[in-house]
Amino acid sequence: MTRNDVTNQFEPSDPDFAARVKQSFSEQAIMHTIGAVLVGVEPGRVQIELPYQQGLTQQDGFIHAGVSATIMDSACGYAAFSLMPSSARVLTIEFKTNLLAPAAGDSFCAVGEVRKPGRSLFFAEAELHARRDDSDKLVATMTATLMAVQG
Amino acid sequence: MTRNDVTNQFEPSDPDFAARVKQSFSEQAIMHTIGAVLVGVEPGRVQIELPYQQGLTQQDGFIHAGVSATIMDSACGYAAFSLMPSSARVLTIEFKTNLLAPAAGDSFCAVGEVRKPGRSLFFAEAELHARRDDSDKLVATMTATLMAVQG
Amino acid sequence: MTRNDVTNQFEPSDPDFAARVKQSFSEQAIMHTIGAVLVGVEPGRVQIELPYQQGLTQQDGFIHAGVSATIMDSACGYAAFSLMPSSARVLTIEFKTNLLAPAAGDSFCAVGEVRKPGRSLFFAEAELHARRDDSDKLVATMTATLMAVQG
Amino acid sequence: MTRNDVTNQFEPSDPDFAARVKQSFSEQAIMHTIGAVLVGVEPGRVQIELPYQQGLTQQDGFIHAGVSATIMDSACGYAAFSLMPSSARVLTIEFKTNLLAPAAGDSFCAVGEVRKPGRSLFFAEAELHARRDDSDKLVATMTATLMAVQG
Repeated sequence: MTRNDVTNQFEPSDPDFAARVKQSFSEQAIMHTIGAVLVGVEPGRVQIELPYQQGLTQQDGFIHAGVSATIMDSACGYAAFSLMPSSARVLTIEFKTNLLAPAAGDSFCAVGEVRKPGRSLFFAEAELHARRDDSDKLVATMTATLMAVQG
Repeated sequence: MTRNDVTNQFEPSDPDFAARVKQSFSEQAIMHTIGAVLVGVEPGRVQIELPYQQGLTQQDGFIHAGVSATIMDSACGYAAFSLMPSSARVLTIEFKTNLLAPAAGDSFCAVGEVRKPGRSLFFAEAELHARRDDSDKLVATMTATLMAVQG
Repeated sequence: MTRNDVTNQFEPSDPDFAARVKQSFSEQAIMHTIGAVLVGVEPGRVQIELPYQQGLTQQDGFIHAGVSATIMDSACGYAAFSLMPSSARVLTIEFKTNLLAPAAGDSFCAVGEVRKPGRSLFFAEAELHARRDDSDKLVATMTATLMAVQG
Repeated sequence: MTRNDVTNQFEPSDPDFAARVKQSFSEQAIMHTIGAVLVGVEPGRVQIELPYQQGLTQQDGFIHAGVSATIMDSACGYAAFSLMPSSARVLTIEFKTNLLAPAAGDSFCAVGEVRKPGRSLFFAEAELHARRDDSDKLVATMTATLMAVQG
């Protein structure tokens, strides 16, 4: 959508949100296992990159849809987490992914953005782009509901 | 749902469906990477097991939702693939996952079942159960649309 | 799925759950508008019927997918509402619908069932069956997240 | 998402796409029943408006989520239909809706846009905005898969 009405200018309730996101991301062992890197943290917006690796593929040599979902889910989750108070944990309630094209490329970039923050529930969206040479192709999308859990 | 109207008695169009599913599963490098094992193949129904590994976790030590989605997606995909003609490839069009409880346990079992086969599009569902000692807990569900691609 | 592990034997926290569901259903003006009827209320399980009407169709004469979603959403919502304390309201957070066959028939029956109740969030599933003469056909499914709101 | 990479400059394969969309929309009896109006047709982008009516509400007086889904589904469907050849029919395969806020307002506007056209499958997104006086509020989103059916 062309979303002129969306400013994405969220005020984080925790000024140290970026450090908090980076710390939590570093504790996601799966990100190390698949080689995903946190490359951008803004209030309500998180970017994760994943270089192609043969060990992440499905039977046709493309990145498995579940791996695509993994980094989009983390991108959505941390986008929401960046807006939560420092005392909160983040849980994914649900997500839906549409696979638009085979995930073929040299690297993949998941961008997650909060569309609607709330007290306990956050709605976020992510896109996954595949990059090769000069090209940048949208290959998947996600919509997700995240929850802030106190304690 | 209690689904008395569902027989799940599908006739596979390819009598060698099980061998075909096993062969393709063995070519999904991601399954080796995460340690997932194909433990059951029936017409329209596939079961995948995943032992707990610390390297698959998110920040709280549970299996990452994307990893749960990975094995549920493969379970749905191969459930559909088992009913396709031998010449077809399988693509995931979309899936949605609801995370019902933290994926905590010693091992995880994804069961995927076709609910509605079609010429090109298949609808499948999966459940993910977490096992520890005697307990068996439903922790996630998936609904998915798969496509048979000729060639 | 064949769900041997699911008992659907929920204990309602409000013994008057059925009256409460019926009262709220009668306040959904849209149900009167489309001619939907509440035909079954059990703890965590609600059934809604809709006779075919030409005024509910899309361009090919089938019931519009949004109308199918309308009664499946109410079936899921009231299945969750039946398990909530009497002081709670119910809100739909999200739903996903797969349309498996054209909604053609003399009447349509949506059955919604809670799969996972919670303190604030409920996960429910619905199926829509189309009936004509002796036949009963699954034409759509829904998965939904509902929230109990106090006050 | 801020989607700088999306041009939404689709080339319709049928130059008479707008007339075709309007004709088909007029044949959706449900649109007359609920009072929805087609207010914009561009290649790959369709806008539908719905004035508030008490007869479309749920128990709290808001527009029922299924009615919101109804006009978002038609917006997605006709956005896809606008790009299809003149011989094709359009079917919805699946949609997912996130309800972000109560659908309260004087009127509601669903905008559906194709994000990824294909030979047979189209991916589209919709947003639902509630309007009152000067305010315009995002209250729901949809992602949908549509299919072009020949004949």
